[in-house]
Amino acid sequence: MTDDSRGPMLRRLDLARNDRGRAHLESDMATFMDVHSGFFGVTSEQLKGAHDADLAIEADEGVHFERAWMDPESGKVFCLATGPSREAVMRIHERAGHPTAEVYEVSIEV
Amino acid sequence: MTDDSRGPMLRRLDLARNDRGRAHLESDMATFMDVHSGFFGVTSEQLKGAHDADLAIEADEGVHFERAWMDPESGKVFCLATGPSREAVMRIHERAGHPTAEVYEVSIEV
Repeated sequence: MTDDSRGPMLRRLDLARNDRGRAHLESDMATFMDVHSGFFGVTSEQLKGAHDADLAIEADEGVHFERAWMDPESGKVFCLATGPSREAVMRIHERAGHPTAEVYEVSIEV
Repeated sequence: MTDDSRGPMLRRLDLARNDRGRAHLESDMATFMDVHSGFFGVTSEQLKGAHDADLAIEADEGVHFERAWMDPESGKVFCLATGPSREAVMRIHERAGHPTAEVYEVSIEV
């Protein structure tokens, strides 16, 4: 498929396919919770800046970061995201300047 | 205050006051993310059962468990809750049969 008139959605699906090595539909998008450590004393504005840095590039990987929660005393941040794979979530966080290897695919939710 | 006609809301506020050692209003309720480990291979129905066990007694401590996400491969569960204190969240989880010491007060959210 080399037709560039396909539009952003199909181009995004191609990225997803590359990541898992097979074609899949948008409905294959999974939910992820990731954990960052070391955000001691970070302010609300700084967390928003970090989150905005993710949002600015997340479409490159078909990822969307929905919410983030921070405990500035323990330095922990939890991010809820959807996307095609753990690796896609990790790549966006790494490019945005806050890498983490602790990304969980939370396939069950209540 | 010994007037038992105050109703459930005021009795709940009393529990909250006892926990922090000072009076505070409902608006002092905080948000918590807690983490459980060892839920390997747990099913959706089993997670719902655990969550329902929390919901059945959470009012005793003025806590509310909003959502829970599970990765059955790593055995991690993340619970989002509101309540008066970390200790109140911990007590409900312990009484419901799934204690954890890993409870974070996530005071900042984006």
